[in-house]
Amino acid sequence: MNDISRLAINQATTKRQWNLRQAVEGYARQGVRRIGIWRDRLEECGLTEAKHLLRDHGMTVTGLNRAGPLFGVGTGLKPSTPDDDRRAIEEAAEIQAECLLVFPGVDPTIKDPVRSRGMMLDRLAALLPEARKAQVALAIEPLHPMLAADRSPLNTMEQANRMCDALGEGAGIVLDVYHCWWDSDLENQIQRAGPRRILGFHVCDWLVPTRDMVQDRGMMGDGVIDIPSIRKCLEQTGYAGAIEVEIFSLRDWWKRDPDEVVRIAIQRYLSRV
Amino acid sequence: MNDISRLAINQATTKRQWNLRQAVEGYARQGVRRIGIWRDRLEECGLTEAKHLLRDHGMTVTGLNRAGPLFGVGTGLKPSTPDDDRRAIEEAAEIQAECLLVFPGVDPTIKDPVRSRGMMLDRLAALLPEARKAQVALAIEPLHPMLAADRSPLNTMEQANRMCDALGEGAGIVLDVYHCWWDSDLENQIQRAGPRRILGFHVCDWLVPTRDMVQDRGMMGDGVIDIPSIRKCLEQTGYAGAIEVEIFSLRDWWKRDPDEVVRIAIQRYLSRV
Repeated sequence: MNDISRLAINQATTKRQWNLRQAVEGYARQGVRRIGIWRDRLEECGLTEAKHLLRDHGMTVTGLNRAGPLFGVGTGLKPSTPDDDRRAIEEAAEIQAECLLVFPGVDPTIKDPVRSRGMMLDRLAALLPEARKAQVALAIEPLHPMLAADRSPLNTMEQANRMCDALGEGAGIVLDVYHCWWDSDLENQIQRAGPRRILGFHVCDWLVPTRDMVQDRGMMGDGVIDIPSIRKCLEQTGYAGAIEVEIFSLRDWWKRDPDEVVRIAIQRYLSRV
Repeated sequence: MNDISRLAINQATTKRQWNLRQAVEGYARQGVRRIGIWRDRLEECGLTEAKHLLRDHGMTVTGLNRAGPLFGVGTGLKPSTPDDDRRAIEEAAEIQAECLLVFPGVDPTIKDPVRSRGMMLDRLAALLPEARKAQVALAIEPLHPMLAADRSPLNTMEQANRMCDALGEGAGIVLDVYHCWWDSDLENQIQRAGPRRILGFHVCDWLVPTRDMVQDRGMMGDGVIDIPSIRKCLEQTGYAGAIEVEIFSLRDWWKRDPDEVVRIAIQRYLSRV
């Protein structure tokens, strides 16, 4: 009943409180053995050091976040170079991450989401041979349509499935309830994806009111998302991978004692997911 | 080339500057003869007075906003009563509005968008006989998925079409580019709707960055939406109705000289829509 072997915590959840060492130690202290890692924190720690740290704590890595942004971000982030993206693949291989998330961004001068997705597909297809060689799965993640103008032209599971069809072996999807809960086609598209294509399952909650389009996510149970239903649908396809808590929360969870954040995340994972 | 006979301005666009009298006079002064009206402003003006005002300026009403919220709004608005909604129908008939928009709201205790849409459908079906009797078309409007938790469980044209199929004669759709531009199924669903079901076409633009989920809309041409493509798709189905500028803009357009807002809206209607 209190099995947390599938629980992962994405380090963004304690981003303001803990660096990578502190996060690995802090999560492990409460029995969590899976972590989602961000590259800026990995580089700050150093790759060799990080590998020791993970091994010493029996911690495995769900996803490395991230290659890209492939096309920049409206709010100012510059596009990555192909070299940057290759380094991301190498790093993901080094820490044996289950997948490398690729963050597309959007070129805001292109007023055509279809064309933006086409450009995204081309860049992914160019990256894929190296990822396959390194045995790193590339993950795309549908982001909420409110982020369509500046963060990603990929906004639904339907679009993600179509892109994976085009990419073939080596690419898959990270499904985040925050981005997809509203979609009446979600169940259908989860079935279409099946268990092999789903590379990760992220949970948090949608708050009412939501005061920031990126950094105001809630803890599972504090919002409107019926997470157990989405999980059930996913597991009916055979998915048995990690269930990863990822909460961006400028006003609340990033201000709390991180040990408390982990403790509550575990409780809510057991009772509300 | 400078034909603005199809141009309407929704009075929300000058909400902070002008009451109904000022809006009718101000729009008419620059040759705009179609207006979208809000009920609070109509009641403030008085129905008899408003009818004189509209007649004296040769102004016709596109839509009356609104019946509802049927289920309250997360941010605090109370649900309407059936009596409120009946009054809205009467008022729409009195001012000969082309349609009455129905604002659903969401009961935030219901974590199931399918059930929320079912409840919305039931309430609309109950309202429809009176609307038909009064010859008032009821309009539903898909709102952006970022508003799914607290303002509307109806978030795509596909869902709106399905709901109209269930409702039958007397119900239709107001399509707003702001809510639907990101949707890769949009063109298909516009074709499915056809010209008779489309009761209104609202335009504005999606800004990068967007700083507020409700009140940070842009003037056409200032954002990322390819409005001419959506218009073209709509007109290919045979739609020849109003094209209505509706801009909620706490930081920009609501602070400007309203005559300038109308002047620029006309310019942009002619050049960017």
